[in-house]
Amino acid sequence: MHRGGSLLNPTIAYETWGELSPQRDNAILIFTGLSPSAHAASSAEDPEPGWWEEMVGPGRAIDTRRFFVICVNSLGSCFGSTGAASINPETGQPYQRHFPVLSLEDVSRGGWEVVRHLGIEKLYATVGPSMGGMSALGFEILFPGLSQRLLIISSATHALPFATALRSLQREMIRRDPNWSDGSYSAKNFPTMGMQLARKLGMITYRSADEWEERFGRERNSEDFSVDDPFALTFEIETYLEHHANKFTGQFDPNCYLYLSRASDLFDVADHGSSVEEAIKRIKSPRVMVVGVVSDILYPLHQQSELASLLRSGERDVEFVELPSIQGHDSFLADMDNFCPVVAEFLD
Amino acid sequence: MHRGGSLLNPTIAYETWGELSPQRDNAILIFTGLSPSAHAASSAEDPEPGWWEEMVGPGRAIDTRRFFVICVNSLGSCFGSTGAASINPETGQPYQRHFPVLSLEDVSRGGWEVVRHLGIEKLYATVGPSMGGMSALGFEILFPGLSQRLLIISSATHALPFATALRSLQREMIRRDPNWSDGSYSAKNFPTMGMQLARKLGMITYRSADEWEERFGRERNSEDFSVDDPFALTFEIETYLEHHANKFTGQFDPNCYLYLSRASDLFDVADHGSSVEEAIKRIKSPRVMVVGVVSDILYPLHQQSELASLLRSGERDVEFVELPSIQGHDSFLADMDNFCPVVAEFLD
Repeated sequence: MHRGGSLLNPTIAYETWGELSPQRDNAILIFTGLSPSAHAASSAEDPEPGWWEEMVGPGRAIDTRRFFVICVNSLGSCFGSTGAASINPETGQPYQRHFPVLSLEDVSRGGWEVVRHLGIEKLYATVGPSMGGMSALGFEILFPGLSQRLLIISSATHALPFATALRSLQREMIRRDPNWSDGSYSAKNFPTMGMQLARKLGMITYRSADEWEERFGRERNSEDFSVDDPFALTFEIETYLEHHANKFTGQFDPNCYLYLSRASDLFDVADHGSSVEEAIKRIKSPRVMVVGVVSDILYPLHQQSELASLLRSGERDVEFVELPSIQGHDSFLADMDNFCPVVAEFLD
Repeated sequence: MHRGGSLLNPTIAYETWGELSPQRDNAILIFTGLSPSAHAASSAEDPEPGWWEEMVGPGRAIDTRRFFVICVNSLGSCFGSTGAASINPETGQPYQRHFPVLSLEDVSRGGWEVVRHLGIEKLYATVGPSMGGMSALGFEILFPGLSQRLLIISSATHALPFATALRSLQREMIRRDPNWSDGSYSAKNFPTMGMQLARKLGMITYRSADEWEERFGRERNSEDFSVDDPFALTFEIETYLEHHANKFTGQFDPNCYLYLSRASDLFDVADHGSSVEEAIKRIKSPRVMVVGVVSDILYPLHQQSELASLLRSGERDVEFVELPSIQGHDSFLADMDNFCPVVAEFLD
């Protein structure tokens, strides 16, 4: 592991779509944000819509008729890859809080192991939105020259203290849930409260004030001021958050969430050189696109602009795209009208 | 109470500075944000620095040599005014969760009772930052023509869903603390966890990403990755929040916090007319200043700009001031270099 410790025989879960060309030169590797699985899009084997269904598929921006698309579930996650919820083969018990410190560099390495396992020596492109953008930067730094194109979406070289504050508080909400029990919760005594609070805060940071003003305004479900519950959730925005929190909880393992969240805060491109400028020089992809949106408060636009400027210092062809999406950090999942053409054009 | 119910013999705590002129025409009334007491500034009776120490005092922007300054502790708060922590004289028990629904109109009314009690029929000015700005708007709507000047700082006609989402989540953190016990906690079984989490989220929303980038960057207290606590608070921003959360908890009553927070979400100037435009017409102050800062995410600048536009529809002299402060919503407490001259000029 990048910061010490090791895993015995770890698994990296991945899915692929399309066919690898005889020249093995049409593969695209996708790193995900913090919470998705490797199931980026539906397939014959799994017809459930994926987390990037409108982006990945036949005739889509990441066109599976043309490209061999690979999406990896991050090391440390809980959708098939080894993480804190997995059994430690050395003890026969789940790792839980005894999983080693997770770094996004370990996630990058997981992606590389999959690529190597598939016998691919050159990638057409590496793509990463959000935390996946950091994993993709780590991938390019650790394994330079593998990717001909690098697409970084709504990400940054490091987290700002504002983002760290929000994630640190999310982690604390989980850790303070009495059921968390220092990481040794069971399905019966599960830190549901902490996960729900953390997810609500997540949703607040993933979207934007303007979007919610448009969608919800001051709509209320009830004008009733019940003396039985003077603090009942009555505004539409409150029930919206409640709905999303309930959906998330139970899907994601709390310890895995803690490890991935912490890894996002620890990541810093600058750790890979005497300065961030020196570290960026290790990235060898000749073509790079950096995309950001104006309404992102987690990885604000100036971070993508700075990343693009840093990347421009070399021989690379660097494009910086600023999108007017109002859906905040999650725009790459929500505003496909703006995102799909930009991604399609870069890959063409 | 504005939304039903009543209080028997409520108390409104207030402090005053300076001397009321023989013409009784030099009084300034200050409504506070959600958490402060009436102790806006130090005095001979209480030499402790107040929450607006640099703003209020002899020779300060709100000059106590010239003005008779009154600051009220909001009805529903816990610093002398009647609130959920007070004893209900009808039962001999604290109100706790059985306090009636609190509205900022009730806070406005509390201010009016103090002014009336002091024998003042005309105010030189009414001043309100943050939640206090809403209370001041409510005051002007309910008691029109009382104030010759109205100064609204970092406030709005209503909360946006983004602000409501954040406050709703803060309330949920407290209510979900097992020690909250449906509002009937004791000093021994106190919802410390919920209050600390809520205060941390409060701090995140009160300041700004740019300020923290400047102050903290990626500074860490420790480079150590202890296996004993892989999620320990190691970034400076994390220990800063911890420090502020510890300071707040124990000072503020959790139920009072819940009532005032909810009242901030419920307030809407538009409730006082067939439309917000009609409601605003009830405000009779001939001179108004609306101040906002660019870095405020809780009451963003466009809300102050909109409020100023609405106020301009009448015969009033309305000034809108946009400040470049980077300290976010709390700039009126932190960026005195920008705020003091603006307030002094308006009152002169």
